[in-house]
Amino acid sequence: MDPIPHDVLIRFAESCLRAVGVSPERSAIVAEVLVDADLRGVDSHGCARLRRYVDGVRAGAIDPSADVKAVVDTPALAVLDAGNGLGQVAGRQAVDLAAEKAKALGCGVVLTRRSNHFGTAGYYARRAADQGMVGLVMSNASPQVAPTHGAQPMFGTNPLAYAVPGRDGPAVLYDASTSVVPRGRLERLSRGGHERVPDGWIQAPDGSHPSLAEAIGQLKARQGSAILPLGGAGEATSGHKGFGMGLLVELLCGPLAGASWGRNVYGEGGADIGQFYFCMDAGSLGSSEEAVGACEALAAHMRATPPLDPARPVRLPGDRSAETRRERLAHGVPLSPPVAEDLAAVAAQCGVEPLMAAADIATRP
Amino acid sequence: MDPIPHDVLIRFAESCLRAVGVSPERSAIVAEVLVDADLRGVDSHGCARLRRYVDGVRAGAIDPSADVKAVVDTPALAVLDAGNGLGQVAGRQAVDLAAEKAKALGCGVVLTRRSNHFGTAGYYARRAADQGMVGLVMSNASPQVAPTHGAQPMFGTNPLAYAVPGRDGPAVLYDASTSVVPRGRLERLSRGGHERVPDGWIQAPDGSHPSLAEAIGQLKARQGSAILPLGGAGEATSGHKGFGMGLLVELLCGPLAGASWGRNVYGEGGADIGQFYFCMDAGSLGSSEEAVGACEALAAHMRATPPLDPARPVRLPGDRSAETRRERLAHGVPLSPPVAEDLAAVAAQCGVEPLMAAADIATRP
Repeated sequence: MDPIPHDVLIRFAESCLRAVGVSPERSAIVAEVLVDADLRGVDSHGCARLRRYVDGVRAGAIDPSADVKAVVDTPALAVLDAGNGLGQVAGRQAVDLAAEKAKALGCGVVLTRRSNHFGTAGYYARRAADQGMVGLVMSNASPQVAPTHGAQPMFGTNPLAYAVPGRDGPAVLYDASTSVVPRGRLERLSRGGHERVPDGWIQAPDGSHPSLAEAIGQLKARQGSAILPLGGAGEATSGHKGFGMGLLVELLCGPLAGASWGRNVYGEGGADIGQFYFCMDAGSLGSSEEAVGACEALAAHMRATPPLDPARPVRLPGDRSAETRRERLAHGVPLSPPVAEDLAAVAAQCGVEPLMAAADIATRP
Repeated sequence: MDPIPHDVLIRFAESCLRAVGVSPERSAIVAEVLVDADLRGVDSHGCARLRRYVDGVRAGAIDPSADVKAVVDTPALAVLDAGNGLGQVAGRQAVDLAAEKAKALGCGVVLTRRSNHFGTAGYYARRAADQGMVGLVMSNASPQVAPTHGAQPMFGTNPLAYAVPGRDGPAVLYDASTSVVPRGRLERLSRGGHERVPDGWIQAPDGSHPSLAEAIGQLKARQGSAILPLGGAGEATSGHKGFGMGLLVELLCGPLAGASWGRNVYGEGGADIGQFYFCMDAGSLGSSEEAVGACEALAAHMRATPPLDPARPVRLPGDRSAETRRERLAHGVPLSPPVAEDLAAVAAQCGVEPLMAAADIATRP
């Protein structure tokens, strides 16, 4: 299958979401967040996840019409109750509100509770940077990571993203889980035919060495293997620091946001995850030009580090995804055969025109 | 030498600082920050560093009388120019100002520039939590860490601390460098008679395996060996994530604060490091009781994780230091022979009563 133009992919995702009862405006938001991930090369969080949202809405696990209500609203801090609605809808509203507060006062924080999976944290950090903000975004998630010295998955891979504004897109855009890897990395390897879990990624409490497929099954069941915090097992290479970073995300997005936390996330009452959005207005820091210029100078300084291997220059967070984005904006988004197949099935379920036909029409002379 | 009562240690540090021309009020602040580290067991950042500040002031590298001036002051964001003064003086003012802004508006950020080493980031995070705040504190530092795939130290071990309020001291207090280890860990091992650098802590660009003493020398010279980011070398166990976290600290405390950054820190114009202080008022999150209670419940939930080794229960960031603090408040701070010796020399230089005599007097019946 040829790469799909990104606007075709957006329209396709929108159609599927509208078909299951999501409003046009909200369908457009979710589609934009999904295809942003595809454009940046974060394929695990792109249209490959469309089914998750479509199925979630159809099954009633996500309420597509939920109102997002402010339950706390001080000048520089708000808490939004997402009403078990689409995480992207609450997320867009939250980051824009944090940016608005920061524009007025210098900085602002918005927390969400009763939210759902919101796509990539990086989308929201980038959206903040596009408004002249330093953006910092976090989310908690289903329990898959073990605390240092612990034998059980107790908290999520808890992503953290940040972006600082630049002259042409963010000067730096970081977007990653706080664990060694997210489960998606294991799944990608497994789909690629690998059987062995790379060293230092997971622990089995009984000291066994489960295969990739076994480890993935145990992670889904929240029993047995757990993903390690960044820094690895124990304290020899400071795994306790990665645990501490994951815990920061869990504290802010769970108990402080008033959402679920620890092993209670994605429990019987629904996902009830929380998110944290922080914005700081670069324009308030004396001169925005100066602050942005200095961030870009620091980025250039880091890229100019003599490399260990001349064939492998130093890159900054976001460099690779910015390249992929330019490439895919120009030439379309390649879909792997399993994703293309899954999207065809979603289209059939939703009764919308399949992607291949839509792409053909779009590229017809 | 017997353990020294912490109040005796504070008075001793104060006397030395006053002797070199630091005002009584500022001497008290620096002494409190130093002895707070001793109490928490962060011996590398306690009175072992008194010489650094005394010498810095005597040599004119730190201006003890510098005014701390606000160069930006919006309702929720300020930037303070520390005037190359004592980092602790600017730090106390900065965190208290961030807490004041957060108390009024929900959250607040204060950045400092032209600052100096400020002790442990954890002191300020704890001070925020003691005022009912979620505190997040960062500092950049002299270049010792290599970016992923880079062959040279380009940025600091960039500490990050956070604390959330609890009923009896912080519910969680995290305080650590964003690299695998700080240089102090290498120095402690070396003083303890070790010769080999533990695996996964540093890299030598030529692939050699320098001894501990050699590695420390190269780090001080900013050439050759570099400390690895949290997550280790390359991307196999996500060293690029640790690089990204160190870079977040560098961006906020360097270019965004208007301080020096990268290899320019501690350059010819002085330290010129920057710090970042974020406070979020737990009392603004609906009910403070509820938010604090939920954070403590999450902490208890994590501590109750079944341990891998029954003899090694799961601990949270700050648990060990809280125990040490209770112990040392009750029984005094033990000083290692080299530190006791160094403090005797500092006392002689400053013309103040040596610590041993002071401790003897304090404990005389």
